[in-house]
Amino acid sequence: MQMADSIVDIERTSRLLRNGDRKSLARAITLAESARGEDRESAARLMDALHSMGSRQSLRIGLTGPPGTGKSTFVDCFGSWLTERGKKIAVLAIDPSSSRTGGSILGDKTRMEQLAQNSNAFVRPSPTRNASGGISHRTRESVYLCEQAGFDIVFIETAGVGQSETSVSEMSDIFVLLLPPAAGDELQGVKRGIMEYADLVLVTKADGDLKRAAGRTRSEYASALHFFSRKRHDPPGRPKVFEISSHQKTGLDIVWEELVALETWRKDNGAWHIVRRRQAIQWLEAAIHESLLEEILGHTEARQLLIETEQKIQRGKIMPAGAALEALRSIRSRWKPVNEY
Amino acid sequence: MQMADSIVDIERTSRLLRNGDRKSLARAITLAESARGEDRESAARLMDALHSMGSRQSLRIGLTGPPGTGKSTFVDCFGSWLTERGKKIAVLAIDPSSSRTGGSILGDKTRMEQLAQNSNAFVRPSPTRNASGGISHRTRESVYLCEQAGFDIVFIETAGVGQSETSVSEMSDIFVLLLPPAAGDELQGVKRGIMEYADLVLVTKADGDLKRAAGRTRSEYASALHFFSRKRHDPPGRPKVFEISSHQKTGLDIVWEELVALETWRKDNGAWHIVRRRQAIQWLEAAIHESLLEEILGHTEARQLLIETEQKIQRGKIMPAGAALEALRSIRSRWKPVNEY
Repeated sequence: MQMADSIVDIERTSRLLRNGDRKSLARAITLAESARGEDRESAARLMDALHSMGSRQSLRIGLTGPPGTGKSTFVDCFGSWLTERGKKIAVLAIDPSSSRTGGSILGDKTRMEQLAQNSNAFVRPSPTRNASGGISHRTRESVYLCEQAGFDIVFIETAGVGQSETSVSEMSDIFVLLLPPAAGDELQGVKRGIMEYADLVLVTKADGDLKRAAGRTRSEYASALHFFSRKRHDPPGRPKVFEISSHQKTGLDIVWEELVALETWRKDNGAWHIVRRRQAIQWLEAAIHESLLEEILGHTEARQLLIETEQKIQRGKIMPAGAALEALRSIRSRWKPVNEY
Repeated sequence: MQMADSIVDIERTSRLLRNGDRKSLARAITLAESARGEDRESAARLMDALHSMGSRQSLRIGLTGPPGTGKSTFVDCFGSWLTERGKKIAVLAIDPSSSRTGGSILGDKTRMEQLAQNSNAFVRPSPTRNASGGISHRTRESVYLCEQAGFDIVFIETAGVGQSETSVSEMSDIFVLLLPPAAGDELQGVKRGIMEYADLVLVTKADGDLKRAAGRTRSEYASALHFFSRKRHDPPGRPKVFEISSHQKTGLDIVWEELVALETWRKDNGAWHIVRRRQAIQWLEAAIHESLLEEILGHTEARQLLIETEQKIQRGKIMPAGAALEALRSIRSRWKPVNEY
């Protein structure tokens, strides 16, 4: 049946996307990321159509680490290595700057030179712009769309700043923490609390002058992580810590083996399915909460009101409780329940 | 000036509260925790009145740890020890069960037998019930009210389950993680990500048969924590790990010394003030976001709709994106902007 849609031909786009058409995928992601209600509606209908064709599952790999660790270089290198082994790779690069600069597609593409020119790879920046400044639920939609386009692996790369890591771990099957070789024995720049979300820790730049430091860093983290409880259902000795070199392409085979081992273990004991279902509920909740807050607080006037209120609080002039009530009164005067429940 | 208020005499209550009157404090907290708009309004006006008298600052200590660690026993013992040294102590016990059972004041009071009968201590359970199931911003208001009532130290105890730890660390000056002596070398039951929020780690039950295990656990964590970056502005060698016994009252003096050392250090280098200001902004945002979501999603019909939608997603029948849009449409049909921005 040919379905008509005011903006997008859902049936045609879903069929093309399912067959791996990159233009359809790019367009679908643009719809999902759009601020316009009718675009979001089309994106949702498209996902429903794809779901009715039988949802595909990729391996979703979240990546984080402090700035300068070499995350993009690693994705470029590891992604290319995987395509050489017959895998199709999608990369969603979450760039906190993209909401300010109006997108940094070029920036991200040039950061991943090899992948950008690879016909088995798809690289796309994903904006961060929910009401709390974190990563939006829309990134989940992009991940899902990449899966349905037939990519075997979807990388979700986060810049390692802001509140994005927890969200990325909630939309990943496996969450990888990348760390540079440490100069001393204290880890610089890793946000507190991230270490323990990791399913796998990679020490980058294990080549040349830094090879020795990388080895030392690896063994230090291996012994530190030993004390933390592993994720429920995971095999013993996790998370593992490896050292890799993107320049020399060393360690990539071991990383891939570990990713497959974790995937297999979790699928065999049911944990994979449980986590995916929990993530679907988190997706629903995030979509509802973020959409409501965006609708109510996303307008220029409301934003301005909040900024002014924050400044007054910063100067110690007013208390947050009263300030919140006053702001809510002003916001509510524009919104009103049609019927009380 | 005598201020009149429809429900509460703000001027009188704030004056009594400021003088340490426990009944006024208890009543003010009840107002802040109330679901009724006019009560919240009174609470906000009360806080404004207290703020205009010059806000006092207590030392806010957040406490977390796995069930069975002896958190309540520690607060009971350490709190009593502090009152013997002339300190006035307030305890807000965050009990995730209280929203279900309709309050467990008796339960909490009997769990802290010594403090409950101590005229220099105030023990109060605090409900958890924001839209995401986390701790409400209302607990921040209770903390502030206790501060203004002249308590030197406010303990915020969380049960160590759910999403409450991050919120508690956001309303504490110092966040303490309590751990039981471990049987092996793997930490059981501590939620991932919590370890790195800690400003101080205490291994409990360091007496009798468990003394040796507590010592071993302490040194293991001390070496594991060595690898994590300390909080910005903190003195070297933090977080420290101590062992304590609530039964034998050992280690309490060292804990107190460390709390004072951290407070002094942070006040001297300005970090204290910076963190408090950031927390005030977080309070504002939490209050606005939670209030809006509660207003819109807190009603029985909306709750029922969300539960049914979640069940459909769990069974794989629908996609979260489309389900969210449909739920939003139904919720929005009862709410409507009076003017578009």
